[in-house]
Amino acid sequence: MSLLVVGSVALDSVETPFGKAHDVLGGSATFFAASASLLSRVQVVGVVGDGYPMDALKPLERRGVDFAGLERAKGSSFRWRGRYRHDLNFAETLETHLGVFSNFHPKIPPQFRSASFVFLGNIDPRLQLDVLTQVDKPRLVACDTMNFWIESRRPDLVKLLGHVDAITLNDSEARQLTDCANLIKAAKWIMERGPSLVIIKKGEHGAFMFTPESVFFAPAFPLEEVFDPTGAGDSFAGGFMGYLARAGDISDANLRRAVIYGSAMGSFAVEKFSIDRLLEVDAPQLLARVAEFRSLVAFEEEMPA
Amino acid sequence: MSLLVVGSVALDSVETPFGKAHDVLGGSATFFAASASLLSRVQVVGVVGDGYPMDALKPLERRGVDFAGLERAKGSSFRWRGRYRHDLNFAETLETHLGVFSNFHPKIPPQFRSASFVFLGNIDPRLQLDVLTQVDKPRLVACDTMNFWIESRRPDLVKLLGHVDAITLNDSEARQLTDCANLIKAAKWIMERGPSLVIIKKGEHGAFMFTPESVFFAPAFPLEEVFDPTGAGDSFAGGFMGYLARAGDISDANLRRAVIYGSAMGSFAVEKFSIDRLLEVDAPQLLARVAEFRSLVAFEEEMPA
Repeated sequence: MSLLVVGSVALDSVETPFGKAHDVLGGSATFFAASASLLSRVQVVGVVGDGYPMDALKPLERRGVDFAGLERAKGSSFRWRGRYRHDLNFAETLETHLGVFSNFHPKIPPQFRSASFVFLGNIDPRLQLDVLTQVDKPRLVACDTMNFWIESRRPDLVKLLGHVDAITLNDSEARQLTDCANLIKAAKWIMERGPSLVIIKKGEHGAFMFTPESVFFAPAFPLEEVFDPTGAGDSFAGGFMGYLARAGDISDANLRRAVIYGSAMGSFAVEKFSIDRLLEVDAPQLLARVAEFRSLVAFEEEMPA
Repeated sequence: MSLLVVGSVALDSVETPFGKAHDVLGGSATFFAASASLLSRVQVVGVVGDGYPMDALKPLERRGVDFAGLERAKGSSFRWRGRYRHDLNFAETLETHLGVFSNFHPKIPPQFRSASFVFLGNIDPRLQLDVLTQVDKPRLVACDTMNFWIESRRPDLVKLLGHVDAITLNDSEARQLTDCANLIKAAKWIMERGPSLVIIKKGEHGAFMFTPESVFFAPAFPLEEVFDPTGAGDSFAGGFMGYLARAGDISDANLRRAVIYGSAMGSFAVEKFSIDRLLEVDAPQLLARVAEFRSLVAFEEEMPA
């Protein structure tokens, strides 16, 4: 089934304890598409400046990503420059240059409007709401957000919650949005305002998926080397939504699997800079990692007499 | 099979955002015994002052805890006073009064020396080593430790590693001991020095069990209210060792189950002050929580076409 993502397509410059990368592919829609395209066709809506290296997107097109909704505007592309030090859970933003992204008004091409699955990447919640007026009746709409919007656009963000089925956010954002330190309470607070699916990401500590009926937990995959954490969250979302779009099934059993596929794609994303590792991964590698996830948490109940 | 614990038997005064408790039962051996005794008979070796409220230990005796190794010495009992604020992961120690514990030299009673499972609670590694000269050939010896011993008794602690089968420690202690930020590398560092089983506890973020062959992860049970985290680690160890002693089986499948039983007992421990909740829990409640752990992480692999 068709999967639409609206978000940023950017150029990242990243410094980690293991190396540096300059002006490499980045942005929420890029990571999302690179991840999801292993599982499903993906439609991208975003904006880049007229100097964006369009050729660099070719490998994504070959994986079935449709950039018909990627606008090219006069001006410079969105650039992010960041650094990770010892604690790879925290990105230090050195520079953000919005460029053409500051005037981004998503326009959904007619052929994308019937998308069954929609992911609203981390952009202004007013734009996320506007996207929803441009699509038909998607089966599942998920959104992401960040502390900046929680602080500056809280009423719009709360309004958005009433119009989405699912939200992904990290633990500190969940606490900030809901003013609940406890994540179960935070998830309930959010579910009361609309989404029936709340995914709270805890970085290296895994992710919770809350629904009104159940709680599911997926650990982060234990890696000896986390090379560059940039894009892990969007790669998670891409794996999650890509799996759902491929299966066309949003039963609890399938949502749980989708969280694991998302976690697996997130674990690949951090093994190299940019989307490099995501582009290498094939289905057998993905299945092997999902099997490793299973072995990581598998146990049989049984109480000896 | 018999299970021996050597550790502190103390009086705790604790302040949390939810209430206060004064001079209640505490100490590593106490939490361990309260937890393990639901699954196995437990033998305790420790020391208390002559004013210790021995009657308060009666409920543990009724659960099959044998205090024949609990010495009563002239002087005051070990007292700890601590506070938890908003972040329940961190205890702020307000006062530590070692009392008779500062001269503790564990003496294992003859009838305890054949114990099959031995847990060396968090005491001076020189004393932990000494205990091992007093027991016959246990099937499995596990130890705990803390930052204080890592800093002040590192050579003895590293020597101890060569004489134990398993160690439990928290993530910051594992990093401090090994100087590896990555927990997989930290576990390998430790395994190279002796233990074939390394359990790294991450508090509210769950626990890893590393063996040379596999990695197992157990989440912490998501609770809406964590009332008092004191003793969670020792209750985890009690559930883990209690399960192993009950089963008399240290296969990988059983070790995984033991980690879950430990996590379940740890999750009960934090629901009330002191060992109060541990003394209430019965086998059906424990089994129900283990089933909830299973549901928390359960997923079926399957990749749609």
